[in-house]
Amino acid sequence: MLDLAFRVDRSCREPYYRQLEDFLRELMATRRLAPGERLPSSRDLAATLGLSRNTVNQAIRALAEDGLLRAHVGRGTFVVGSANAPRPTNLRETRAPHREFVWASLFARRTRAVTVPEAIRSAPPFAEVRFDFRAGQVDLPTLPVSELKRAFGRSISGDLNGLADCKDPRGWLPLRRAIARSLGSRGIACQADEVAVVNGAQQALDLVARVLVDPGDGVAMEQPGYFGAALAFSASEAHLIGVGVDRHGMQTDELARILRARRVKLVYTTPAVQSPTGVTMSEVRRRQLLELADEYQVPVLEDDYDSELRYGVPPIPALKNVDPAGQVIYVGTFSKALFAGLRVGYVVAAQPLLWRLVLSRWASDFNTDLVTQAALAELLDEGGLERHVRRQRRLYGARREALLTALASQMPEDVSWIEPAGGNTVWLTLPAAVDAARLLAESRNRGIAYTPGAAFFFNENGIDGNGARHLLLSFARVPAEAMEAGVGELAALLGRCRMPLKRSA
Amino acid sequence: MLDLAFRVDRSCREPYYRQLEDFLRELMATRRLAPGERLPSSRDLAATLGLSRNTVNQAIRALAEDGLLRAHVGRGTFVVGSANAPRPTNLRETRAPHREFVWASLFARRTRAVTVPEAIRSAPPFAEVRFDFRAGQVDLPTLPVSELKRAFGRSISGDLNGLADCKDPRGWLPLRRAIARSLGSRGIACQADEVAVVNGAQQALDLVARVLVDPGDGVAMEQPGYFGAALAFSASEAHLIGVGVDRHGMQTDELARILRARRVKLVYTTPAVQSPTGVTMSEVRRRQLLELADEYQVPVLEDDYDSELRYGVPPIPALKNVDPAGQVIYVGTFSKALFAGLRVGYVVAAQPLLWRLVLSRWASDFNTDLVTQAALAELLDEGGLERHVRRQRRLYGARREALLTALASQMPEDVSWIEPAGGNTVWLTLPAAVDAARLLAESRNRGIAYTPGAAFFFNENGIDGNGARHLLLSFARVPAEAMEAGVGELAALLGRCRMPLKRSA
Repeated sequence: MLDLAFRVDRSCREPYYRQLEDFLRELMATRRLAPGERLPSSRDLAATLGLSRNTVNQAIRALAEDGLLRAHVGRGTFVVGSANAPRPTNLRETRAPHREFVWASLFARRTRAVTVPEAIRSAPPFAEVRFDFRAGQVDLPTLPVSELKRAFGRSISGDLNGLADCKDPRGWLPLRRAIARSLGSRGIACQADEVAVVNGAQQALDLVARVLVDPGDGVAMEQPGYFGAALAFSASEAHLIGVGVDRHGMQTDELARILRARRVKLVYTTPAVQSPTGVTMSEVRRRQLLELADEYQVPVLEDDYDSELRYGVPPIPALKNVDPAGQVIYVGTFSKALFAGLRVGYVVAAQPLLWRLVLSRWASDFNTDLVTQAALAELLDEGGLERHVRRQRRLYGARREALLTALASQMPEDVSWIEPAGGNTVWLTLPAAVDAARLLAESRNRGIAYTPGAAFFFNENGIDGNGARHLLLSFARVPAEAMEAGVGELAALLGRCRMPLKRSA
Repeated sequence: MLDLAFRVDRSCREPYYRQLEDFLRELMATRRLAPGERLPSSRDLAATLGLSRNTVNQAIRALAEDGLLRAHVGRGTFVVGSANAPRPTNLRETRAPHREFVWASLFARRTRAVTVPEAIRSAPPFAEVRFDFRAGQVDLPTLPVSELKRAFGRSISGDLNGLADCKDPRGWLPLRRAIARSLGSRGIACQADEVAVVNGAQQALDLVARVLVDPGDGVAMEQPGYFGAALAFSASEAHLIGVGVDRHGMQTDELARILRARRVKLVYTTPAVQSPTGVTMSEVRRRQLLELADEYQVPVLEDDYDSELRYGVPPIPALKNVDPAGQVIYVGTFSKALFAGLRVGYVVAAQPLLWRLVLSRWASDFNTDLVTQAALAELLDEGGLERHVRRQRRLYGARREALLTALASQMPEDVSWIEPAGGNTVWLTLPAAVDAARLLAESRNRGIAYTPGAAFFFNENGIDGNGARHLLLSFARVPAEAMEAGVGELAALLGRCRMPLKRSA
């Protein structure tokens, strides 16, 4: 006999028949009510459940309309199937432990919005990458291997007891001190007490979302914008609001209109090197952004992920530099200066917020790897990181030059791009006539790897895969002397991927 | 003039006056409407906002009842104060950038449930710890420093390119392989593909909560139970349901009654070494738990955090050992075998769930430190970890023996404890006559550190600080020869902390 552990929730606004319907649906989805099984009569069900027959019949009718139940004259009502039930079986059999547990019906609402764009997710389907223009990477041969080895060695033989006993979820104090000191170069005067170490910038974005974003809350961010941010905010069920970007950075007049129209919980921005366009936000726009944030009392999340790499222009101080009210949340990372596998970033925030971030951090994973934190503290303290960044700047500066030269000489006139003032990527816009999907496929076949623009466009619910007309080329890994050849091949493919109709136009 | 960027949301079920009331409340909390300021007349407000005067008056009345507004005859309605506003100022002044941003009104609902028990959170307020009985620690002098150093050195000079380029959020493949192999000793046959590396067991619990728990969903867990689990689940707004524990582990008859009464999304358990009591779940209870999980189609989260440490009894295979349906989520960690500062744990789960966990993991922080992952893979592959665990087992075995002997000889008859079959802690129950808060304070004064039981009791919303009658003593750090003295001092303090009324009874 069917175990009907169902009770009407009388405090709930859902009508009783809907509650019963949902309950029966769940029994079917989890196969506790299996195809072929006969439902008790509505009279019996009503008596057992303490409901009116009318309520029971309404529920049964709704399920029948969905094709999940069927009535046979003179025999009763039978379970026909269930949305999540591939294999027919009966209830007894479902108790046997050899079928797979049905997870799909149990996933939380929040998690359903989390998708990672295919362009970012998938392993490269090429056997050999000849030109690696993919974003998010660094040059590997120049990584300071021996300095890293020394730093990790010192970390372990230094104060292992201290590391093992560190109970501060803000992280390892010597590293927080070193970070606070190093932020002077970004114009930020802060104490170790205002710094929390996290697992890369991504965790900072996720923690801010956890602490500030209720489902449906508005979060404004640049469009195109960093997919990791869109991912973190949509995992907290934010309502993403795109703000346009031009050569001066985020379009603050558009932001002003958005702020007038609706309540926004957070503005996310990458002012130093806009992700993905590489644009640096102008001083005028920065002032306007901060004024708007003050006027509407909206916090600003400044992701300063790539500020170490700048070419020929003096660095503009971080937004956090002019933040007497403590309204700017500043996020930095070692992923770009060293490599992303270290998973160390940091957040600088006013005390009331920092404490909340730290509590959520405690619930989520307590702390960042302490051996690595201590090793980074060593590397910062003896200047090893600064030396490495200086070397990188020279290396990437030459590669940037070579890529821009190659683009100018090889790309057709209707392809445009932005000369980045910092970072290590160039954002390209293709003409509408180019079949971007075909270009991607053919490039892969030829071993030319790049990051398609689709990952950087989103709708209110998350990344939506638009933006195929764009592509992001990183110059971090392609030697300067190979740029001409790589860009040349890409330009040739691009010519072949023009759509015939447009071509004749 | 007051900038009233308010629009009634006509699709919302909240009555309009409530929406206006909430909006005005927020203006006050963020000081855009400051104490002393005059509200426009209800007639003007109604006209500006396109609302009826009645609606406006209802909102004003509600705020007046809360003491936030006050009407002065013939002068109008004035802002009196706001819950979050310590300093009186006026609206013009709030626009000046020198006051602190008000964070409190912006925190998400979800984050408000996250609290860390004081007993766990606070740094020890003693200058010198003479006897360190605190839980969650390991013996430091025996940590395999030179082996760790070698492993980290190899990690960096080994395949740094591979580490820097690892794009798999499940973690470093050689470590996942080594973990899958090592799980054979727990009776679990699994492939590297079913393993995801995470930042300690805590992140596994948090990710499972993110993926499975909607606000209000029931999560059943042992009471007393692991505070980290209560923290992770309540951070996802779970409704925590305590299930009693006796000397055979979780009381499955109680779980059965709970499952009959309400839908439960997840059962969390620590069967190998129940946290905090140290009890091992009997085979009968394990079978009953798995049968219930099958009957009600509820996933089981098995936290096998301390299974390496067992004394004199053969290990019982993990629940995951008999899990043909893939319904058990298995979590392990290196925090106990090595030390918690490494922040490496792992989760073994069926593919549909594992993929969801990995997506959420991507959104939250992408990956676990890869240098540390590769170092641990080295340590596992050459048997260094196994050797260390064997040494630890001998060391802790002797200390366990010494602690139990000292308790038996020193503690008064009305103090009871459980002899743990594994782990490195002993759970004590004090008689009601002892003033536990005073005992804690006096112990701290004497340099005797232990973990108060309060951290392990929770109500439906999270840790509630009950359970003061219990305390948790770890034998990980106190040398065997010091046990008698440490326990003796504690017993003497305990005698002095008996409450006079009870004493005379």
